[in-house]
Amino acid sequence: MIEALLAHRSVRTFLPDTLPPGTLELLAAAAQSASTSSNVQAWSLVAVTEPALKARLAELSGRQDFIARAPLFLAFVADTSRLRRLGARHGKPMEGLDYLESFIVASVDAALASQNAVVAAEALGLGTVYVGALRNRPEEVAAELNLPPGAVALFGLCVGQPDPAAPGAVKPRLPQAAVLHHDRYDHAAEDAAIAAYDERLKAFSVSQGIGPSGWVGRMLARVADAAALHGRDRMKPALRRLGFPLK
Amino acid sequence: MIEALLAHRSVRTFLPDTLPPGTLELLAAAAQSASTSSNVQAWSLVAVTEPALKARLAELSGRQDFIARAPLFLAFVADTSRLRRLGARHGKPMEGLDYLESFIVASVDAALASQNAVVAAEALGLGTVYVGALRNRPEEVAAELNLPPGAVALFGLCVGQPDPAAPGAVKPRLPQAAVLHHDRYDHAAEDAAIAAYDERLKAFSVSQGIGPSGWVGRMLARVADAAALHGRDRMKPALRRLGFPLK
Repeated sequence: MIEALLAHRSVRTFLPDTLPPGTLELLAAAAQSASTSSNVQAWSLVAVTEPALKARLAELSGRQDFIARAPLFLAFVADTSRLRRLGARHGKPMEGLDYLESFIVASVDAALASQNAVVAAEALGLGTVYVGALRNRPEEVAAELNLPPGAVALFGLCVGQPDPAAPGAVKPRLPQAAVLHHDRYDHAAEDAAIAAYDERLKAFSVSQGIGPSGWVGRMLARVADAAALHGRDRMKPALRRLGFPLK
Repeated sequence: MIEALLAHRSVRTFLPDTLPPGTLELLAAAAQSASTSSNVQAWSLVAVTEPALKARLAELSGRQDFIARAPLFLAFVADTSRLRRLGARHGKPMEGLDYLESFIVASVDAALASQNAVVAAEALGLGTVYVGALRNRPEEVAAELNLPPGAVALFGLCVGQPDPAAPGAVKPRLPQAAVLHHDRYDHAAEDAAIAAYDERLKAFSVSQGIGPSGWVGRMLARVADAAALHGRDRMKPALRRLGFPLK
């Protein structure tokens, strides 16, 4: 199992085949088996297979066409709406849901669930790729998916049979020395680790036919300014409109 | 592998044995193999084994004593500080990090990584339990762990050999009909699903010797007001102090 985790790679090129019956239900069951904060289960899953809807979500997610070509697109939803409906049905206050904390709980719940779905998908021989760009235009995505107030599509996940004509490699990560700390955070080893990683990632990029693109340059570009967030600088007002007061 | 995911349960009672050499490094490697938004790897791991520090973190996390008794406590850190240091070293602007979006990226990255660590730990026969209460007093936890600005301990994870004298059962989750939606969110089946689940969870609680405690009552209590958040209603000001402007 650990070897399978270490062999993870993102897959963006899928065979057009639909998935075997029961696959979605198995992925959802694996996702539900993940831990959840105090058993609140503050997430939901919208499984999209309708071609026109996949195409529309691809358009809303920075025109990433592989979304439309994946046989299954899973929208992982940070979902406080179920609890809000529960409170309304029982006439009880739900003030705790107004705090940023409740968005954090829902987001972490959704992420733990999704990662279990990824592990399960790969165990079935399927490939996946996360789609953070589903946050580029959150209100429009919520409208397409008919999300109720208190729910937001946090990220997507494409699932399908990997196209054997487009093999991929495992992308190297930062040296463990840059990420793992013992008892207290200490970044003394970081500069050397990042310099080594930058070279390693450049070599990896060349091996993948995309030129010597290192980590440092990519990171500096990615967080330089609001424009680099592709609309996600609007997450705070968008979440408020979608029913997360974020107090 | 999927059977292993479905058999997940939280473990809070551990044998006192320290973990075999290399266990931590294997868990960290599995965690690093999870997907990360645009390869930013905006998370870190502080592995706590020092007894006094574990005891202090237990005290700060709602006095959950099992933290002190676990041989290994992993603090999963939503970490934008590495990127901030990178920007400072290169004299580049890092305005993107000022937005709520960057906290979301870091939180989701940390959660995906942690769930891989859980899957790996269970594959090794170890037990785990997440500790969301590590957010009860975020500034004090950050001080104990020497976290730099732009880093917050998002949650903890206890890891150890499960005590065979304290066996547990797999806690039932909401029926799939309450969580899984097809193409568009539709909660028509929810009321019946929740009613059935409430009964099922009461029976489960009785079987675990803790009385007929259902889901609805627990949830209504948990989100009723700010006091029920055990300090986590302060997450927004705490995050701002810790170097997340949350614009």
